[in-house]
Amino acid sequence: MSLVVQKYGGTSVGSVDRIKNVARRALAAQAAGHQVVLVVSAMSGETNRLLALTKQLSQRPDEREQDVVIATGEQVTVGLVALAIQDLGGKARSYLGHQVRITTDSAFSKARIRSIDGDALFASLSRGEIAVVAGFQGQDDAGNVTTLGRGGSDTTAVAVAAALQMSVGHPVTCEIYTDVDGVFTTDPNICKGARKLDRISYEEMLELASLGAKVLQIRSVEFAMKYKVPLWVKSSFNDDPGTLVCEEDAAMEDVVVAGVAHDMNEARVAIRSVPDKPGIARQIFGALAEGNVVVDMIVQNVSADGRTDLTFTVTKTDLARARETIEKLLGGDLAGARVETGGGIAKVSIVGVGMRNHAGVAAKMFDVLATENINILMISTSEIRVSCVIDEKYTELAVRALHTAFGLDKPAAGAGG
Amino acid sequence: MSLVVQKYGGTSVGSVDRIKNVARRALAAQAAGHQVVLVVSAMSGETNRLLALTKQLSQRPDEREQDVVIATGEQVTVGLVALAIQDLGGKARSYLGHQVRITTDSAFSKARIRSIDGDALFASLSRGEIAVVAGFQGQDDAGNVTTLGRGGSDTTAVAVAAALQMSVGHPVTCEIYTDVDGVFTTDPNICKGARKLDRISYEEMLELASLGAKVLQIRSVEFAMKYKVPLWVKSSFNDDPGTLVCEEDAAMEDVVVAGVAHDMNEARVAIRSVPDKPGIARQIFGALAEGNVVVDMIVQNVSADGRTDLTFTVTKTDLARARETIEKLLGGDLAGARVETGGGIAKVSIVGVGMRNHAGVAAKMFDVLATENINILMISTSEIRVSCVIDEKYTELAVRALHTAFGLDKPAAGAGG
Repeated sequence: MSLVVQKYGGTSVGSVDRIKNVARRALAAQAAGHQVVLVVSAMSGETNRLLALTKQLSQRPDEREQDVVIATGEQVTVGLVALAIQDLGGKARSYLGHQVRITTDSAFSKARIRSIDGDALFASLSRGEIAVVAGFQGQDDAGNVTTLGRGGSDTTAVAVAAALQMSVGHPVTCEIYTDVDGVFTTDPNICKGARKLDRISYEEMLELASLGAKVLQIRSVEFAMKYKVPLWVKSSFNDDPGTLVCEEDAAMEDVVVAGVAHDMNEARVAIRSVPDKPGIARQIFGALAEGNVVVDMIVQNVSADGRTDLTFTVTKTDLARARETIEKLLGGDLAGARVETGGGIAKVSIVGVGMRNHAGVAAKMFDVLATENINILMISTSEIRVSCVIDEKYTELAVRALHTAFGLDKPAAGAGG
Repeated sequence: MSLVVQKYGGTSVGSVDRIKNVARRALAAQAAGHQVVLVVSAMSGETNRLLALTKQLSQRPDEREQDVVIATGEQVTVGLVALAIQDLGGKARSYLGHQVRITTDSAFSKARIRSIDGDALFASLSRGEIAVVAGFQGQDDAGNVTTLGRGGSDTTAVAVAAALQMSVGHPVTCEIYTDVDGVFTTDPNICKGARKLDRISYEEMLELASLGAKVLQIRSVEFAMKYKVPLWVKSSFNDDPGTLVCEEDAAMEDVVVAGVAHDMNEARVAIRSVPDKPGIARQIFGALAEGNVVVDMIVQNVSADGRTDLTFTVTKTDLARARETIEKLLGGDLAGARVETGGGIAKVSIVGVGMRNHAGVAAKMFDVLATENINILMISTSEIRVSCVIDEKYTELAVRALHTAFGLDKPAAGAGG
């Protein structure tokens, strides 16, 4: 008998009727011969409602107490889902984070899972029950309630699958049910030619997730990759097969570009005329890290006359803080430099494990953008990704042009499933 | 430094502003030199909202899962109260049932507390924090979430006080904050002369609570009596001293009647012409107990011609079930008997530990009712209580007449505080 972990997000459990739908799907999987563990999120809107309550009481709510409050969203859902399954004649039992010993570090509001004890779940499954586990929540060593950050239920599901997999000694599939049909070659909202992928590698999915494709929490993909958990992204509203996120194979390498991503949530900071001497970069980015500013791309030009320009991107919400931090440095070692900040930019990226074996991919991307008369402001590359920062107004145009140029409008020959 | 447990009910934490008020009151108690443990309920309306959700998914929701859902109400409140205290510059930390090991039996939805581990609370207090404990919830030996039934937060508060008291070796005061000023001689809504009592004995409070005075959960009073926890009932909206529920003393015994209670939530079942032979009562009340019908008063007349009449009262909600149960018996050993049921009744009671030392109290009650031309349908007595069932329409008249006749309209000489 095979074991499957199904995760349903907030939209999929957003109403009593949708909860019943989840119960039916879980029972269908059980009837098809699977042992089923469900991981569920809070009903859509609930986490925001609870956060708003904490904000009414405190401008900067203590994160331990905030986690106590918002963890209730998932607790309500597990109870309701268990009741829905029982009402359809099935057997079910709910489990909270601490009841299956989802142990995390103590980083409230963004805790990381350290271990999960599968014993209670195996006992539940052996009684013929569907085990319904609260996503998003855990407990630290001191017994405090912790939460895993936005999208944390994805990570709970993958971690549960990984824990069960280690016990049974063979792969345990994790199915992430969401309100889209799977992972797409690009955002269907801005490119009609976007196609659902049948398969994608963990690494490509990681790049796409970190580039702003919101379909999976990044940490859940890291977890799946680390423990080799087969991860399906599927729609909870139909029975289509979805997208399998799995280990890279030969067929995937034939496809140069698996997807095109864009991110309009960043802003640019340029520091002009920076003294080009050792320790300056450490000083700047050390100060930003201390100020909790997350820096994405960093570009430094070749020096001229002992001075250089340093440009980097941060999320729009961190922009003011980044500027303040840099301005404090201008009086000291950065004397003579000046800072410029600006929004109105977008990052467009192409991602594919096939890049490793194909030369000239970056050059082709620059060529496509040039043909469309789109100026490139910043460039950054990794082994399987090329990202360009461009003027925000060209985002859709760039995405569509790249999608077509890299052959994503038609089904891929190699990666087809 | 003295230790105090303050409990705030749903109305007292029913909005963000009221939660801030609770935070201010707790900090004031701390500033006055107390170590403070708070026990809080769900925000008013929240438990009913959650119950309605479970009812939408199941006609008869599994009580284990229902407890998982409704326990979230208190979890939200403890987090918010802790945030409110912190926002006012105080130190606070929330504790869920399982975090202070509030261990109960496994009777979901009406669990009984077995033990509480005060260690976490003492540690919190020693750090100068106000410890905020979730009322109403606990955990059984298997780690399941349990709830204590309506009003269960009162019992949590008293049990916490009892547990702390056992550790420190001297009484720990428990203050129950509510939306009334204390315990009254009778319901102020139907009797203008009702007066707030300064003190009342545990036993009197138990009788009043079980007779329908809704101010405290019965089990909380039992717990307070068993562990001799000094229990104050106070208003959360003013600084009046409230009512102290405590051990009986000589002064209380001078007062014959401490209060007049009424209950209009019962209905009457009469079984006429019951064969008067051994085992019949056992058969009837055994069948009712199996059907989960809670029987209150039972009256059996002296037999005539080997047949007798048996009358008892049940809550209105149980009436239909009680009738069905009895009708099933009529075909067997109860052949020849017939059943009559009726609502439209009220139970009026006088309560006082002084009755033990005063003869003629019951006779005086019957006399008062007769003077008002009120017919008595059933009578039942205990050591410190006399109850009469009368026609519902005379309830207010009976309460007012008894209140005056037993001298409750003016401050009592002995029990004054």
